[in-house]
Amino acid sequence: MNQNIDSLPSADVADYGYSSEKEAYLRRLKRIEGQVRGIARMVGEDAYCIDILTQVAAVNKALHAVSLGLLEEHIGHCVVNAVAASDEAGEAKVKEATDAIGRLLR
Amino acid sequence: MNQNIDSLPSADVADYGYSSEKEAYLRRLKRIEGQVRGIARMVGEDAYCIDILTQVAAVNKALHAVSLGLLEEHIGHCVVNAVAASDEAGEAKVKEATDAIGRLLR
Amino acid sequence: MNQNIDSLPSADVADYGYSSEKEAYLRRLKRIEGQVRGIARMVGEDAYCIDILTQVAAVNKALHAVSLGLLEEHIGHCVVNAVAASDEAGEAKVKEATDAIGRLLR
Amino acid sequence: MNQNIDSLPSADVADYGYSSEKEAYLRRLKRIEGQVRGIARMVGEDAYCIDILTQVAAVNKALHAVSLGLLEEHIGHCVVNAVAASDEAGEAKVKEATDAIGRLLR
Repeated sequence: MNQNIDSLPSADVADYGYSSEKEAYLRRLKRIEGQVRGIARMVGEDAYCIDILTQVAAVNKALHAVSLGLLEEHIGHCVVNAVAASDEAGEAKVKEATDAIGRLLR
Repeated sequence: MNQNIDSLPSADVADYGYSSEKEAYLRRLKRIEGQVRGIARMVGEDAYCIDILTQVAAVNKALHAVSLGLLEEHIGHCVVNAVAASDEAGEAKVKEATDAIGRLLR
Repeated sequence: MNQNIDSLPSADVADYGYSSEKEAYLRRLKRIEGQVRGIARMVGEDAYCIDILTQVAAVNKALHAVSLGLLEEHIGHCVVNAVAASDEAGEAKVKEATDAIGRLLR
Repeated sequence: MNQNIDSLPSADVADYGYSSEKEAYLRRLKRIEGQVRGIARMVGEDAYCIDILTQVAAVNKALHAVSLGLLEEHIGHCVVNAVAASDEAGEAKVKEATDAIGRLLR
């Protein structure tokens, strides 16, 4: 599956910023996926609620870290490039990024 | 300390409260696991950052819903049973639940 | 103003749990009010955005601490008393508390 | 380090972005200050915990809105200006903004 993805045309993709660290993100998301599976296993084994909630909090934290990494690269690349292109494009990208942050805050 | 509390009359796991809805939780966690895998796929395919962040926000929200469900059942069962057993046990369980909520708020 | 409040009939108020620590809560909220006023002052003096955001994060954190304190006492008193009164009352209070936690998580 | 960044051409505070809407921010913060005072009044009058928590959640939400407004203007002005000045300054500002977002997420 990964192979299919890696062979996709992605010539101009570097603009997205996170591309350079793609492997690192994929590893982190793999780990988060495993954590979620671990939570399901705990539920299946009737683990103690509080222990499950502790794991949920850990997944939240790991997802926050991923979000912040993506945001940092997004602002430093997409947003900055859009601003360089035109005021209008820049303003739209800044608004879009702030809306995304707002969804994460909720 | 946990052991004292856990050794209170609670012969079967049904006390944990969420057991009755175990299947529903497992389905929800399965879906969340799929969402996380979907995010990894997006990263692998160089999807647009903001679209990835939107998916991360959706996973956060789904995890919050799971947490609240677990908390509701935990408070209504474990905490309430502990309070019925003794003031001390009750106080410890209330503190433990509040600490768990604190970790979710962060 | 405080005097008016203190002279209100509050015979049965101890049930709310937080009453015993009312003075401590009032002090903490006074401090938070001062922090918010400080943020307004920073805006008025054109302080650096990031410094303002750091202060906003500090207020969020202080409010979280207040919320958790109130929740702990609420669960340990109101919820527990309601459960003791009747299953129905208990269930309603547990649901109400979980809904309140959900609003804090958002 | 901050000083290097701050000493970039930024003669007047208008660069901070939020200045143009200063009055609006001051009004919003005044309202939030009043909300916090209202919460203290509720505690003083032994209001019901859940009602107090609802007000705390409202203050959190109002502070989030202020944060997002400040962030939007900060990214659109300070960060973008820093990026235009130099790669180094830009990178530092993007990192600084992301760290601030991280503090808000917590």
